[in-house]
Amino acid sequence: MKEINLAVIGSGSTYCPELMDGFIKAQDSLKLKRVAFMDIDERKRTIVGGLCVRMLEKAGIDCETVLTDDLDLALQGADFVVTQIRVGKLPCRHLDESIPLKHDLIGQETTGIGGFFKALRTIPAIANITDRMEKICPNAWLINFTNPSGIITEFLVNHTKIKSVGLCNVPINMVDDVKAAVGEDAQITYLGLNHLSWITSVKVNGEEMFDKLFDEGFAPTVMANIEDDGFDMDCIRACHGFPSSYLQYYYNRATKLAHLKAGVKSRAQVCMEIEEQLLEMYSDRELCVKPALLDQRGGHKYSLAAVSLIDSLANDKRDVQIVNLRNEGALDFMDDDDVVEIPALITADGPKPLPIEKVTNRHIISLMRTVKSYEKYTVEAAMTGSDSAALNALMLHPLCGDFAQAKACYEEMKEAHKQFLPQFFKS
Amino acid sequence: MKEINLAVIGSGSTYCPELMDGFIKAQDSLKLKRVAFMDIDERKRTIVGGLCVRMLEKAGIDCETVLTDDLDLALQGADFVVTQIRVGKLPCRHLDESIPLKHDLIGQETTGIGGFFKALRTIPAIANITDRMEKICPNAWLINFTNPSGIITEFLVNHTKIKSVGLCNVPINMVDDVKAAVGEDAQITYLGLNHLSWITSVKVNGEEMFDKLFDEGFAPTVMANIEDDGFDMDCIRACHGFPSSYLQYYYNRATKLAHLKAGVKSRAQVCMEIEEQLLEMYSDRELCVKPALLDQRGGHKYSLAAVSLIDSLANDKRDVQIVNLRNEGALDFMDDDDVVEIPALITADGPKPLPIEKVTNRHIISLMRTVKSYEKYTVEAAMTGSDSAALNALMLHPLCGDFAQAKACYEEMKEAHKQFLPQFFKS
Amino acid sequence: MKEINLAVIGSGSTYCPELMDGFIKAQDSLKLKRVAFMDIDERKRTIVGGLCVRMLEKAGIDCETVLTDDLDLALQGADFVVTQIRVGKLPCRHLDESIPLKHDLIGQETTGIGGFFKALRTIPAIANITDRMEKICPNAWLINFTNPSGIITEFLVNHTKIKSVGLCNVPINMVDDVKAAVGEDAQITYLGLNHLSWITSVKVNGEEMFDKLFDEGFAPTVMANIEDDGFDMDCIRACHGFPSSYLQYYYNRATKLAHLKAGVKSRAQVCMEIEEQLLEMYSDRELCVKPALLDQRGGHKYSLAAVSLIDSLANDKRDVQIVNLRNEGALDFMDDDDVVEIPALITADGPKPLPIEKVTNRHIISLMRTVKSYEKYTVEAAMTGSDSAALNALMLHPLCGDFAQAKACYEEMKEAHKQFLPQFFKS
Amino acid sequence: MKEINLAVIGSGSTYCPELMDGFIKAQDSLKLKRVAFMDIDERKRTIVGGLCVRMLEKAGIDCETVLTDDLDLALQGADFVVTQIRVGKLPCRHLDESIPLKHDLIGQETTGIGGFFKALRTIPAIANITDRMEKICPNAWLINFTNPSGIITEFLVNHTKIKSVGLCNVPINMVDDVKAAVGEDAQITYLGLNHLSWITSVKVNGEEMFDKLFDEGFAPTVMANIEDDGFDMDCIRACHGFPSSYLQYYYNRATKLAHLKAGVKSRAQVCMEIEEQLLEMYSDRELCVKPALLDQRGGHKYSLAAVSLIDSLANDKRDVQIVNLRNEGALDFMDDDDVVEIPALITADGPKPLPIEKVTNRHIISLMRTVKSYEKYTVEAAMTGSDSAALNALMLHPLCGDFAQAKACYEEMKEAHKQFLPQFFKS
Repeated sequence: MKEINLAVIGSGSTYCPELMDGFIKAQDSLKLKRVAFMDIDERKRTIVGGLCVRMLEKAGIDCETVLTDDLDLALQGADFVVTQIRVGKLPCRHLDESIPLKHDLIGQETTGIGGFFKALRTIPAIANITDRMEKICPNAWLINFTNPSGIITEFLVNHTKIKSVGLCNVPINMVDDVKAAVGEDAQITYLGLNHLSWITSVKVNGEEMFDKLFDEGFAPTVMANIEDDGFDMDCIRACHGFPSSYLQYYYNRATKLAHLKAGVKSRAQVCMEIEEQLLEMYSDRELCVKPALLDQRGGHKYSLAAVSLIDSLANDKRDVQIVNLRNEGALDFMDDDDVVEIPALITADGPKPLPIEKVTNRHIISLMRTVKSYEKYTVEAAMTGSDSAALNALMLHPLCGDFAQAKACYEEMKEAHKQFLPQFFKS
Repeated sequence: MKEINLAVIGSGSTYCPELMDGFIKAQDSLKLKRVAFMDIDERKRTIVGGLCVRMLEKAGIDCETVLTDDLDLALQGADFVVTQIRVGKLPCRHLDESIPLKHDLIGQETTGIGGFFKALRTIPAIANITDRMEKICPNAWLINFTNPSGIITEFLVNHTKIKSVGLCNVPINMVDDVKAAVGEDAQITYLGLNHLSWITSVKVNGEEMFDKLFDEGFAPTVMANIEDDGFDMDCIRACHGFPSSYLQYYYNRATKLAHLKAGVKSRAQVCMEIEEQLLEMYSDRELCVKPALLDQRGGHKYSLAAVSLIDSLANDKRDVQIVNLRNEGALDFMDDDDVVEIPALITADGPKPLPIEKVTNRHIISLMRTVKSYEKYTVEAAMTGSDSAALNALMLHPLCGDFAQAKACYEEMKEAHKQFLPQFFKS
Repeated sequence: MKEINLAVIGSGSTYCPELMDGFIKAQDSLKLKRVAFMDIDERKRTIVGGLCVRMLEKAGIDCETVLTDDLDLALQGADFVVTQIRVGKLPCRHLDESIPLKHDLIGQETTGIGGFFKALRTIPAIANITDRMEKICPNAWLINFTNPSGIITEFLVNHTKIKSVGLCNVPINMVDDVKAAVGEDAQITYLGLNHLSWITSVKVNGEEMFDKLFDEGFAPTVMANIEDDGFDMDCIRACHGFPSSYLQYYYNRATKLAHLKAGVKSRAQVCMEIEEQLLEMYSDRELCVKPALLDQRGGHKYSLAAVSLIDSLANDKRDVQIVNLRNEGALDFMDDDDVVEIPALITADGPKPLPIEKVTNRHIISLMRTVKSYEKYTVEAAMTGSDSAALNALMLHPLCGDFAQAKACYEEMKEAHKQFLPQFFKS
Repeated sequence: MKEINLAVIGSGSTYCPELMDGFIKAQDSLKLKRVAFMDIDERKRTIVGGLCVRMLEKAGIDCETVLTDDLDLALQGADFVVTQIRVGKLPCRHLDESIPLKHDLIGQETTGIGGFFKALRTIPAIANITDRMEKICPNAWLINFTNPSGIITEFLVNHTKIKSVGLCNVPINMVDDVKAAVGEDAQITYLGLNHLSWITSVKVNGEEMFDKLFDEGFAPTVMANIEDDGFDMDCIRACHGFPSSYLQYYYNRATKLAHLKAGVKSRAQVCMEIEEQLLEMYSDRELCVKPALLDQRGGHKYSLAAVSLIDSLANDKRDVQIVNLRNEGALDFMDDDDVVEIPALITADGPKPLPIEKVTNRHIISLMRTVKSYEKYTVEAAMTGSDSAALNALMLHPLCGDFAQAKACYEEMKEAHKQFLPQFFKS
């Protein structure tokens, strides 16, 4: 059994007990030697970290634990670094989600304009983490959960020297939904980018079940953090793929926008309330297990995804998991260096993309390419502070497109997030 | 000097005297042996054809002329077939332009949703022409001017056996505008799809002048048939290409939509008025030359483009002209069978695409690929009557995107154009 | 029993058999001596009039019948003139309903901008009828059913010498709905303008039942010609009146607009289809009774309202009916000459408005006054062709308000309806 | 010469030196015996009050000055109480201005939905001041400058026992603009509500000059705090009144909304920056006069209006000034208790409304009545915490109207301003 040294960056996240719960359940396969909980927010670090330590103790896991705000200390000897940071915290998310509405744009924190700004704020912070990893633990794996996970991974694998994988809980949930409908042994074709993915084929004993599932009205369950506006069956018929929940922002753009504008609270404000409730619970020193309320924040099966990945990387399990990694020819219509979200064989040497049957669905090809161009421009803007790269990103984004709206929204948000975007305010 | 036999399909177009004017000016190089003027509208065929015949006579061109509504008769012995048809005429264009506004979509007749429906109506009519050409004049060249010219050419070169080239007067106007600014010997890089094109490089004596032209505020003249809403300089800086006038519909989508909605008359209605004025003029049997009013309809340099192309095809001139043809590797980011609008060497064996310097501008790559996917779906819909293909087209179109708007607008327009869309109403 | 001579102007209306049905049912009280069916549309006059004549015959009513396109002939000896005309017919209604959508305004044919233009076209035609009545039958009663009925009546009673009453089937339906819920002997307070009315009190045995009905979720049935978008209960609580169906256009303006824009067919287009079906049925010479399909057009209880009114006027019945007439002090917050829709005692000397309990509901007072100002400006515009009066009307209309939208929409519609609006195109 | 004891409530307002400047200029007529500067914000009270005291000293005015956060102390012996408070300060104003934009509503702080919420927050605070005045200085005059000034005065004169007048600098600026154009001796008819007013007649030597001024393109200068979107001349022709700047929000609603949505900063945010600059200036102990920058905040001629009013009240000057006061029959289309903004004779016994020529302009009558109904509902909501009254207010407001938008915006703003709206959260 592999012993591992783990560093959790952004350990004040109220999701963190979920992660610990995963390691506890996996203790027959993965032995934790040391866990470093690093966060710059003292209150959250202390409360959430306290619960995590109590959970490990109660589960009888005997490992060193460190609570710290010192990144270098956290990274000492790390084999795996999990990043789950939120630059500017939920108040910035509130701005991400609410300012775009004024400009008739969707602010959503991963797929929408909010995700764009989150990426601009986050990439410099991630770059700082990889810089320190190069010095302190150059061989460690960075497992990224920070949203927008696809764009962050696009940055990580193409612009840093650190080994990294991007992870999301959407694929595992979508696949499990299909399996629940047709059986565990279904062969499922899943492809896309993070939060822009489809299941395009479901085979049981070699027989294609897609049309049958469609006729029965099957649709993957919508994630808990998204208001479900439904999918039009004519839309799914045309796309010929079961879409990820996040595609509602594309297919139902006008409806989503109207609902978001009609909302009293942003999702960020709802999350602030849930977070306060969770912190209050976590503060109870009698609590030594993950509370059920956690599932309300959309993190369903998050720990399963994370721990399975670390387990397979650590133990060279060579099973198939859906992760974000470089395409390297798996999809012939994407470039080799494009980060995509597809099934990969997880080995000690890293995830290896598995070849996928030839894709002829122009709808999927076109959306993936367009959004990838948006992502590449976003990474460029985050790294260089280029206004033109930023505007190019928004001009290509299917949820924006109009230059005047893009520019007005961009300028207002840049101003609002000024303190976290020094790269755009170099004199 | 080459003698040619010409068939003009849709000769009732009030642009036709412009075309004849071109042949008259080119008579030292091209000798017309026979011209067939074919149109199903008796009044316009007679009036416009009458003027054309008088123009040829006055110019001393001694050739056989035929006015007919019989396609087969018109095609007899043809070397060149020019198509300039308008299925459903201007009243259909009015519907194309006005219905989408109700759904907050732009109806424009080439680039907008109007162009989509124009293609659906037109492709079956073009297919009928090529079917007859296969029988009657299988070696003739089809020169297409019918809008949306890019989509029609996409159909022609990939789904018929007839040799064809797509033509538009936008490239020649854009290039001439640049030359007027920097000199005749400028080397200009022009690329794109029809009505989605950019000039990305302007070299004089090997020196790149693009940034200098940009700093001086240069922009190609906006076509007469488009209301000029201007380009934001930050937009051109980000795109790093001088855009075709039609890109205003993309970059200024919200503004264009607002202006179109505020307009009292559709462009179709304005054209109906101009057409009536022209027909009245043309009816004057004393008139034997092209009247100046013609230029108001956006056809500037149309005859120059058409006649130059025919001249070079007929006489193997091997000069460079910008036309719509299969990519065949000229742009490495597009498929070989994608019809693109780029410079080509015009030979007796047809136009040969010229290689273009490696394109790295993701903005252009992404827009061209997205719109090409839209075009391919449009051709599929027109050929098969598939609702899903039609909806896929609109979902990818950067001027639409939202499924609910697409579907509502599509259904209303399909109903409105029912008589011209039999392929969608098969029982 | 009173013998009456009746002239129906616009007798080609497919509602006309409904009216005849009413007279047939009332034959014990009203004896028809002569009925003149006048319409300028020959086909509809013949088909609809043919059915009406057959209905009268089958019912054993022995009266003179005249089918004519000659207004003067129709008016000969008339005691009652019923006007149900539609200037420009359903194609104009389609323009009324569809053009405003482009400007993000609601076009509805009575309450919306469509009603405004319908009034501009209709008032000159009504003025022509009253001019002829002054000459031919100066003592006849004009019963107006032509929409927008409130505005037409505003014109009739204040600007002509003819005795007139405006009628609508909304009040009788609303009152009957309430009675169905609480019993026939309920005392009901109904007030407002045509298509802008409320039931504000429902008493049974002196006890106020309004709040109880509200708590039970009572709302009057929505008319068949309006898509029901529902009323928000908080809205009805705030207004403290059960609103007429047409108030959905005010309270749910944005939703209505969105639904209208998403619609494939305008209401006019639906009506054209129903009309064709009806005309086909009516053409069947075997048919001698009113067909059931008629009720789909929103004319429920139309004949009951019309015949009851004529009966009471003719026979001095002195019962209470809700009609459109001059306020004359009944509502102290409205001017004496304002036409309102309230209960009146119907006498041979005309309807006499009944006093209503003091109204303190500012919501109702304010909406009634605002819409009345709009109506007065509309009448002025229709009579004078004043652009300023027209723009003032639209600026005050709660469904418009913005000057720029008003002006753009006004100019487009004025142009579209040019042939029916000579008063605005005087040189 | 009258000696007066003055209390300024909200003296931390950076406008306060403007007020002091007015008293300094008026010292020949008004002798200050005591000035109490009261504010709950210590920093602003100290800095602004410090400058005011230095200004008085430098001007040689020898009076007692008191800086305090104690309302009762400030009111001791007061003859005049000037209220210029801002409950929740500029951050609340930012919410007032920005939240409505999300719901496609204009948030402007007096005329828009922002003004509505400002009134809800302010009226309880004003009620507290008048409660204390009843105890401490029951005969003092309350001069209100707090916005929305019309609604606050509507509350003051109808729901408190304190003598009060509402004041605004718009009338004096509009009148002076006209006089600058036609001469000092012009007779000008000004009428309306606060921020909803028109000049409807301009006579010189008995001759009406309105149309001449209109033809010359005259329009009153737009206030510095409003972005000028211009007035359409057809609009002014239709209204037949020169409108106050604030009417741009009504006539150009859609354009204003678009511009506000496109803006990077709210007006509140701009004001915060100006305020900081001013406070920095004021902190300079060498500064003893009003700085010029003050004029950028729209307070032009504010002190002139205030001091002239106090002077005339104190000295029974019986001159004519335009103030906000009860109508008492001056406008026959408004109720006696409606607060209107019209010329009044200013006497020691208070302002007496002057009769105005009969108004027949339905546009003005209708807008004034509608907005007055909105104001009455607003006062009711502020006093009782009734959701229905609040929703009724917004349903009648010409800048809102749609119930669904009103409700969504209302609920979000109520939540955002929760701490200042206890009346709506009574259990």
